Amino acid sequence: MYGGIEAGGTKWVCAIGDGPDDLHELATIPTTTPAETLGAAASFFQRNGKIAGIGIGSFGPIDYARGSITTTPKPGWANTDVVGALRAALDVPVAFDTDVNAAALGEQRWGAAVGLETFSYVTVGTGIGGGGMANGRLMHGLLHPEFGHMRIPHDRARDRFEGVCPYHGDCFEGLASGGAISARWGKDPEELAADEVWDLEAEYLALGLLNVIAVLSPQLIILGGGVMKEPTLLGRVSTRVVELAAGYFEIPNIVPPALGDRAGVVGALELARSNGAS
Amino acid sequence: MYGGIEAGGTKWVCAIGDGPDDLHELATIPTTTPAETLGAAASFFQRNGKIAGIGIGSFGPIDYARGSITTTPKPGWANTDVVGALRAALDVPVAFDTDVNAAALGEQRWGAAVGLETFSYVTVGTGIGGGGMANGRLMHGLLHPEFGHMRIPHDRARDRFEGVCPYHGDCFEGLASGGAISARWGKDPEELAADEVWDLEAEYLALGLLNVIAVLSPQLIILGGGVMKEPTLLGRVSTRVVELAAGYFEIPNIVPPALGDRAGVVGALELARSNGAS
Repeated sequence: MYGGIEAGGTKWVCAIGDGPDDLHELATIPTTTPAETLGAAASFFQRNGKIAGIGIGSFGPIDYARGSITTTPKPGWANTDVVGALRAALDVPVAFDTDVNAAALGEQRWGAAVGLETFSYVTVGTGIGGGGMANGRLMHGLLHPEFGHMRIPHDRARDRFEGVCPYHGDCFEGLASGGAISARWGKDPEELAADEVWDLEAEYLALGLLNVIAVLSPQLIILGGGVMKEPTLLGRVSTRVVELAAGYFEIPNIVPPALGDRAGVVGALELARSNGAS
Repeated sequence: MYGGIEAGGTKWVCAIGDGPDDLHELATIPTTTPAETLGAAASFFQRNGKIAGIGIGSFGPIDYARGSITTTPKPGWANTDVVGALRAALDVPVAFDTDVNAAALGEQRWGAAVGLETFSYVTVGTGIGGGGMANGRLMHGLLHPEFGHMRIPHDRARDRFEGVCPYHGDCFEGLASGGAISARWGKDPEELAADEVWDLEAEYLALGLLNVIAVLSPQLIILGGGVMKEPTLLGRVSTRVVELAAGYFEIPNIVPPALGDRAGVVGALELARSNGAS
């Protein structure tokens, strides 16, 4: 039995189990201070019996090798040693990666990407995150992927909105995240139904995915996150990617996560189980 | 002793040897028809004694698994079975990859990327190509990387040029390739010296590299090709990448290929040597 944590900026979801059909305990902890949040997570696992190890899919940016959250603007959380704190409290091996890589690992073990070696996972929520596998292992390099901060074309005649990224203004996340949709239209994404809104969103998502395809040539793209709950959006994006590719690229399938909202925490369990192997 | 072929759209460079300091025979064959070019390459290797295998770094797009060039617009070359033809003529194992991946492999074995697992190689010549390694193996997925066909911001107030890509107009290659420079300014890149020319070129190259960094997080970027012979360009690009990143990303070093113009053919030798291992 393993422990998994989906460590988000607003809440931490903790679970014990062996996979998507075997989640024995599940708890949600609000993300407050590092000491309080890490302490509550440690207590949860201490209360719930013996585990062989813990996997954590974390908000970022992270230092994968050191096991810490690095330069996040989230107050109090910059340079937080997550792995060290939990290892000290629980005395078990702790595996650590980005939230998106953990979800990608879950999808490769149990979901939409079984058997694939090179695929991408993109989440469109308050921000935009990206990760996945290349050549059968989770994507790491100098740091880790940050799909949200690509630069994409911004047609200001069609969309005068300046973008919400505090670093880059109108980067991919700045134009296409849930935060950008709310700021541009003055409403939350789930309250918006106009073609104008979702065609523009599909345009930006398609441009971003096209760049992922050009750089990585993934066998599959998994596209999740809260913004993708708009039922027409996946179809609009898929159509627009094909149009933009103009016959030059072979386009991979673009699908929702098979594990749905559980991909993150289930992926964290798999991260614990495969610790060091992926 | 191995054979290596850098199979380009205008010439094929063939070599026999063991590495950059051990190139015994070198021949250049003009790229005419597939039958003539493949025949001349086979004859070269037949004339020059026993080899243990051949590696080919080819212009593309290619089907890596089938050993063929696929949808190239180059007359006569679409759907050419390169590997089958050479294997039949020479009866040795034949390894096949893109020209850029072969050059990347050479740089990892003998050049700028020794010891690295995740790095990118970008060539800016008549077109723009991209490849490299992810997690210690050459980049393959559904097909192979096509960095040149990313979409990047195009500020038409600064640059009214429409781009030269027959598929996408103003994609990365459409705006920043040597072909684009010649078409925009009416002169070959080597005849142009104005800041206006090279600052604009650096802007586009920096945007493209920033997207590679956002998607892959490479430990190093090797930037080669004929356009990079402009002596001020690498510095301009490096500066602009840092500015555009705005402190959000850690930026990898951006360096020229250590093997220079030989990276392609030397990489093809290494492709032969490591056939199946990478």
